[in-house]
Amino acid sequence: MEHSQLVETLPWLALILVVAKLGGDLATRLGQPAVLGELVLGILVGNASLLGFEGFGGLANDHGVELLAELGVIVLLFEVGLESTVKEMMKVGLSSFVVAVVGVIAPMALGFGVGAWLMPTHSVYVHAFLGAALSATSVGITARVLKDIGKSKTKEARIVLGAAVIDDVLGLVVLAVVAGAIAAANEGSSLSAASVALTFGKAAGFLIVAVGVGMLTARRLFRLASHLKAREVLLAVGLGFCFLLAWAASAIGLAPIVGAFAAGLILEDMHFADFTKRGEAKMGDLLRPISAFLVPIFFVRMGARTDLASFATPGAFSLALALIAAAILGKQVCGLGVIGPGVHRLSVGIGMIPRGEVGLIFANIGLTLTVGGERIIEPATFAAIVMMVIATTMVTPPLLKWSMERAKPAG
Amino acid sequence: MEHSQLVETLPWLALILVVAKLGGDLATRLGQPAVLGELVLGILVGNASLLGFEGFGGLANDHGVELLAELGVIVLLFEVGLESTVKEMMKVGLSSFVVAVVGVIAPMALGFGVGAWLMPTHSVYVHAFLGAALSATSVGITARVLKDIGKSKTKEARIVLGAAVIDDVLGLVVLAVVAGAIAAANEGSSLSAASVALTFGKAAGFLIVAVGVGMLTARRLFRLASHLKAREVLLAVGLGFCFLLAWAASAIGLAPIVGAFAAGLILEDMHFADFTKRGEAKMGDLLRPISAFLVPIFFVRMGARTDLASFATPGAFSLALALIAAAILGKQVCGLGVIGPGVHRLSVGIGMIPRGEVGLIFANIGLTLTVGGERIIEPATFAAIVMMVIATTMVTPPLLKWSMERAKPAG
Repeated sequence: MEHSQLVETLPWLALILVVAKLGGDLATRLGQPAVLGELVLGILVGNASLLGFEGFGGLANDHGVELLAELGVIVLLFEVGLESTVKEMMKVGLSSFVVAVVGVIAPMALGFGVGAWLMPTHSVYVHAFLGAALSATSVGITARVLKDIGKSKTKEARIVLGAAVIDDVLGLVVLAVVAGAIAAANEGSSLSAASVALTFGKAAGFLIVAVGVGMLTARRLFRLASHLKAREVLLAVGLGFCFLLAWAASAIGLAPIVGAFAAGLILEDMHFADFTKRGEAKMGDLLRPISAFLVPIFFVRMGARTDLASFATPGAFSLALALIAAAILGKQVCGLGVIGPGVHRLSVGIGMIPRGEVGLIFANIGLTLTVGGERIIEPATFAAIVMMVIATTMVTPPLLKWSMERAKPAG
Repeated sequence: MEHSQLVETLPWLALILVVAKLGGDLATRLGQPAVLGELVLGILVGNASLLGFEGFGGLANDHGVELLAELGVIVLLFEVGLESTVKEMMKVGLSSFVVAVVGVIAPMALGFGVGAWLMPTHSVYVHAFLGAALSATSVGITARVLKDIGKSKTKEARIVLGAAVIDDVLGLVVLAVVAGAIAAANEGSSLSAASVALTFGKAAGFLIVAVGVGMLTARRLFRLASHLKAREVLLAVGLGFCFLLAWAASAIGLAPIVGAFAAGLILEDMHFADFTKRGEAKMGDLLRPISAFLVPIFFVRMGARTDLASFATPGAFSLALALIAAAILGKQVCGLGVIGPGVHRLSVGIGMIPRGEVGLIFANIGLTLTVGGERIIEPATFAAIVMMVIATTMVTPPLLKWSMERAKPAG
């Protein structure tokens, strides 16, 4: 009797849940993290029309699936954040910072070089944009792999996750610089250093203020909430806190997942002491079924949005190979940025590889930019960036599992 | 760095979670079911502009909130369905059927009478439409109250829930009859009995086929799934099953929640035997955090969508009072339809009272219908129907709690 938009989403959700578990099963049998199976089967579903099966394309474009997928990655980063504390992150803070900065500069330089080498007749803005597209890090894949193999609490995990947060701030700055430079070129003016500094300051300021205020108020908030006579108060307040910070992060221009991760870092077991005393379930246990439902939606959808047809774009393949090499090598350099002993540098570098949706967002912005009436990103360039994103996303789960298992347990 | 529609939804979700727990706390302290508090605080938030607080209206209109609310009521009915089995429902099947039929006919007759009495100059179609708007039952409120007070497994609960499912089928027929009669009047033709029978047959056929096929395949499906090497397979397969049936129900024109409830009825503990042997969590325990997150979204939103300003429509108030009386009395008659001893008939009648969103959907359809160029439902009539829906929804939680606690435990 109801008429709703959800009705169209329901069969996709059922399909995603089945696909996720089949994919997880296959990956686990092959000794791989479950997320790899979700991605691969997602790609199969999303590209089923290439195999002659029509009608599955709707999965990647359904608004309900999109919303739940975005909620899923927020819950994932919140969960992963809960496994560390602000204090523990501070300890690896300098390493994270250096890794992030090197991890932005090295791939940018290599991407610029690839552009200059393979597209010599194109403008310097095209080269700069290729560099920018390589600079991003998508933390979702790495966070999920670390969870799948039970390594979220290692020092390597903290360094990578911290660096990914800082990377998000730096990514904002890079995007502001490149887009600003292009706008300035079109207007004949020059890029203002003040506007770059403002972007950077706003983002860094948000993180400091949010974490500071959060740490000061969390204990009191949960103590107050523990007096409420209602069911599952802990879960509701925890999720509410996570959603607020995710929203605040996006309001300042950062990814919502950065806010969700910060919320997880801020909340510690001691904040839930009043609930624990009453014998209630732990936050992590309460979140597990929610993330088991929502998180695979994100990864299956990510797979399904992968357009294998882009591989057929003429001229894209060689550019893609060069970009993939630059993307992987560029992030390996940043493992060297780790300060102090007892950390497996190779694992840190591998953890920074995936570009995921962040790289695609850069490419999409590039599609809208022109210099002197000429498009920055042509179809073949776009296809090459998409292939780079697919490759970096797909190689990370097996590489990171292999590498983390070789790493000696760190301090 | 991401741009998404979820970002607008996040602060509403945080607000809803806080409001739900505060409302639940207040209601519990007053000895009422938590859902009443969620509804009342939802009404306050949705009508905050009447108190001078602007900016909260977006909650009721946000698409993300709508999607999650609809998912919430699906999960709720799935959960409630899991607490009974098809066999148990069959035992009260005849009672449910009589309760449903009487519960449609009696309010329709009373609603028609109210229309003929208070709106004598209006056409017979207006009277018929008022009757139709009173015939619906919204099972969400009753299901939630029964869960809140721990009575979902009583005989009364089964009769009411079964009757609500049958009511949904009958509601389809009533709507087809009234809308068909109006269309026929406009075209000068007459209503075809065959089209009414077809509507009824499709809906009843779906339920019989879905439940039959579901019962035959569920055991095998879950045994197969138990071989998958992936996490939370039970939850994924259960939710997938629920979503598929909810979608199938809506494809046939029934409410998705009817399919979700049927899915819950079909699945029994014995279907999960292979998971239980491995010591995995039970389906009900896995669903609890998911429903704790999603279900309050539905009820807070239902409150927030309540437009208190409709009370100010001139002429609506007296009509509303008469409709409310007809709505409550009409559903009391159906308690007498219960067959056999040991059932608290008053509780059954009270459980059938809420009209919820189903009554509103009828009213909305009425707004689009005309006879001879004249609108079936005028603004004052619409406002009166809205008030009837509010009243029947709000009185049910306290009445049902009071009544179920007086009922002696039944066979």
